[in-house]
Amino acid sequence: MLSGAMLITTAVAVYYNEKSFWSYLISALITVSVGYFLVYKGRHEFSLIKRHLFLLTACCWLAICLFSTLPFVLVLPDLTYVDAVFETVSAITTTGATVLTGLDTMPRGLLFWRAILQWIGGVGIIVMAIAILPALKIGGMKLFKTENSDISEKILPRSSSLSMYIGVVYLILSVSCMLLYFLGGMSGFDAITHGMATVSTGGFANYDASFGHFNDRPHLLWISSVFMLLSALPLVLLVGTLRGHKWILFRDPQVRAFLAIVLFCALLLTWYQHEHNARPWMDALTHSVFNVVSVITTCGFASENYSAWGGLAVILFFYITFSGACSGSTSGGLKIFRTQLAGLLLIKQFKLLVHPNAVWVQKYGTKPVNDQLLGSVLAFCFVYFASIAALALGLSMFDLDFVTALTGAATAISNVGPGLGPVIGPDGNFSSLPDGAKWLISFGMILGRLEILTILLLFTPMYWRY
Amino acid sequence: MLSGAMLITTAVAVYYNEKSFWSYLISALITVSVGYFLVYKGRHEFSLIKRHLFLLTACCWLAICLFSTLPFVLVLPDLTYVDAVFETVSAITTTGATVLTGLDTMPRGLLFWRAILQWIGGVGIIVMAIAILPALKIGGMKLFKTENSDISEKILPRSSSLSMYIGVVYLILSVSCMLLYFLGGMSGFDAITHGMATVSTGGFANYDASFGHFNDRPHLLWISSVFMLLSALPLVLLVGTLRGHKWILFRDPQVRAFLAIVLFCALLLTWYQHEHNARPWMDALTHSVFNVVSVITTCGFASENYSAWGGLAVILFFYITFSGACSGSTSGGLKIFRTQLAGLLLIKQFKLLVHPNAVWVQKYGTKPVNDQLLGSVLAFCFVYFASIAALALGLSMFDLDFVTALTGAATAISNVGPGLGPVIGPDGNFSSLPDGAKWLISFGMILGRLEILTILLLFTPMYWRY
Ligand SMILES: [K+]
Ligand SMILES: [K+]
Repeated sequence: MLSGAMLITTAVAVYYNEKSFWSYLISALITVSVGYFLVYKGRHEFSLIKRHLFLLTACCWLAICLFSTLPFVLVLPDLTYVDAVFETVSAITTTGATVLTGLDTMPRGLLFWRAILQWIGGVGIIVMAIAILPALKIGGMKLFKTENSDISEKILPRSSSLSMYIGVVYLILSVSCMLLYFLGGMSGFDAITHGMATVSTGGFANYDASFGHFNDRPHLLWISSVFMLLSALPLVLLVGTLRGHKWILFRDPQVRAFLAIVLFCALLLTWYQHEHNARPWMDALTHSVFNVVSVITTCGFASENYSAWGGLAVILFFYITFSGACSGSTSGGLKIFRTQLAGLLLIKQFKLLVHPNAVWVQKYGTKPVNDQLLGSVLAFCFVYFASIAALALGLSMFDLDFVTALTGAATAISNVGPGLGPVIGPDGNFSSLPDGAKWLISFGMILGRLEILTILLLFTPMYWRY
Repeated sequence: MLSGAMLITTAVAVYYNEKSFWSYLISALITVSVGYFLVYKGRHEFSLIKRHLFLLTACCWLAICLFSTLPFVLVLPDLTYVDAVFETVSAITTTGATVLTGLDTMPRGLLFWRAILQWIGGVGIIVMAIAILPALKIGGMKLFKTENSDISEKILPRSSSLSMYIGVVYLILSVSCMLLYFLGGMSGFDAITHGMATVSTGGFANYDASFGHFNDRPHLLWISSVFMLLSALPLVLLVGTLRGHKWILFRDPQVRAFLAIVLFCALLLTWYQHEHNARPWMDALTHSVFNVVSVITTCGFASENYSAWGGLAVILFFYITFSGACSGSTSGGLKIFRTQLAGLLLIKQFKLLVHPNAVWVQKYGTKPVNDQLLGSVLAFCFVYFASIAALALGLSMFDLDFVTALTGAATAISNVGPGLGPVIGPDGNFSSLPDGAKWLISFGMILGRLEILTILLLFTPMYWRY
């Protein structure tokens, strides 16, 4: 486990050094020294028990967030500390909600720093999702414990080399995305930074208009949609595909449901925009697909202010803010498989209502689903929505209006990025919120990124008792 | 079971005849004859199996709704049919959302008809909640199956006379509420109709300003709050209290949580209104308590437009719209015990995360809770929120704005009454909605009243298969 933390810290340090500004260098030196200290200390802690992983994971993320604020503080002296923290947390958690305005004229080093943070955050999440969370059995993650599954042995490499394969796939995705962006007409700098923001489903753009800056070249929107979709698929299955098992992706129930939902929402909105806003079919299709994909993969690019598309669009975007994409990817949110398992429970209850004494085995894909697993998934859903509700209540304390508080909480915990409504909607910005609200949202982003329970557990007396 | 339906139909018929208008008489004749036919037919169906109860329950409610629209159609010829259905369904399900304006000058017969419909709806719900739903084991209702519980034998009369006792309690509540209203300064007519609307948690008032009409006499607001609270407690426990077991109410975990939530919300809002809106303490307290109690008991009276109290208030009222009060009362919504059981599951999951191999028995109050029960509760929660989400999506098709669609769906399925925002908020009205939206909301009210699964089950192929 510590090797994961090491890897991240090292990667961060390497990238720090790539910058030519002295401020990045100072940050890098501080980070490297602390990172070295951490690793050194880690050597003595090989006897880690599972329980400590929760604390360690949380601490690592917190530490990385804190150190990564340094460049923001050093480069933009006018930025308040809360804004720097907000922006960093937003990047690291791949949320992509920004408090900065005037991005178009921002120093390029800082824009690059934002992009690289997202990209590293993306790596961190995948490592966590594959290595740590299944071991912790959070919210049904056990289902993805790679050692347990029957198919994985045939299709996937051993666990030890799996993370390497996944790293390679992540890299291939990133590079090909950047390349296609570049060929599609972006400048080299834009191609690299937006490529990182796309593949990590971070969603920071270099422009105040977000991806809308490229609206005159619709093929860029389509390239982006494809790569957002790819990044939101389980990377483990992409590895399997690359190793020659072509249909493994489409045999996965989660992927099938995900693609079906995307298709349904995009087509519904296309129709709605054509009927309701009288847009030409092709134009409506491009922007519907792009923004639906962007929100559901929790990437959070926006090509337009979809808040203004009309009632149906707003509700639909609100829902897909929660849904999230596939587990084992960089996307946030509830994740599709949890909804599916909740649906399974419902079917079971219906069956029990009609045939009270029947007994049967429930399956998800090819894996049997027991009550324990269902319980853990539903507990997760419960705590997920409860967290959003609590966060929205907290935000409303700062006199935010109903829509801002509710969608702000949802977008933070799902790591999507933009909310809805005039304040924090796709054409809005988080900069006008009061400081307290920014702290709350930052906390919410970390909460959501670490699958909530990791953090909440640390606040229970039970955890500290023995 | 049929005796229940008989009872309702007979009661309806009796009350129909109390009206002096010919239109009520015609309605009564039609209803009586059909009711007679139903009862006659029912004699031959004693071999009812449980599965048919779902269909029967749904049909009964639907039939009652349809027949009860007659007076609206006959008395107000200008009313469209959808409005009449909406108003009737709203009354029968004790939702209390109205499409009528100019209530202050409405014929008194019609106002009385609205009140009596709510009152009968209230009786019907209690009968259903006690007699039918536990037998159907919907959404954890098994917990309240009176025959199973240990305490009930000592404290409560046999099941056969239990419904009589409950009827008596309901009657006592109604009469004392009316009496106190009358002594508090209402006219006799207002006291009777508002008494029925209070005890049934229906929430139809005789004035466009809802209960705000009586704002100059704050003691009326307090009387109303007390009776709304009483009506939202489990009537079975009230029976126990009357039979001399004084503390049975406060030993019930559901009641304790309910009262705690009410207290917390009311005090929070009082503080908020004092700080934020600079209202005097007493005034803030009165209106906070009244409106919180009104929404959480799903009564839906409003003394003011609490939509305009500020951010915190709006979010808070949105949440308590969902929560509902105690099971076994006339209130709608999710019901407190379901949230508690979901919380139990969460605690269990936390424990499992820390001590993966521990085994222990979970209890709710004095009753053990097994996984099956938890599963059924959570499936209910899932389908409850999914229904609201689907209904809101449907409503947004009619170009309702975000807040109207979302709170409209929530208020319908929870049977509260008013929504939030300028259109359907406490000072608004459902009359301006398009017809399609009214049909959807009417359907939502019935869905919510019959605990959703009863209805949804009828739409599954599984139900009809054998
Ligand atoms: K994002
Ligand atoms: K009501």
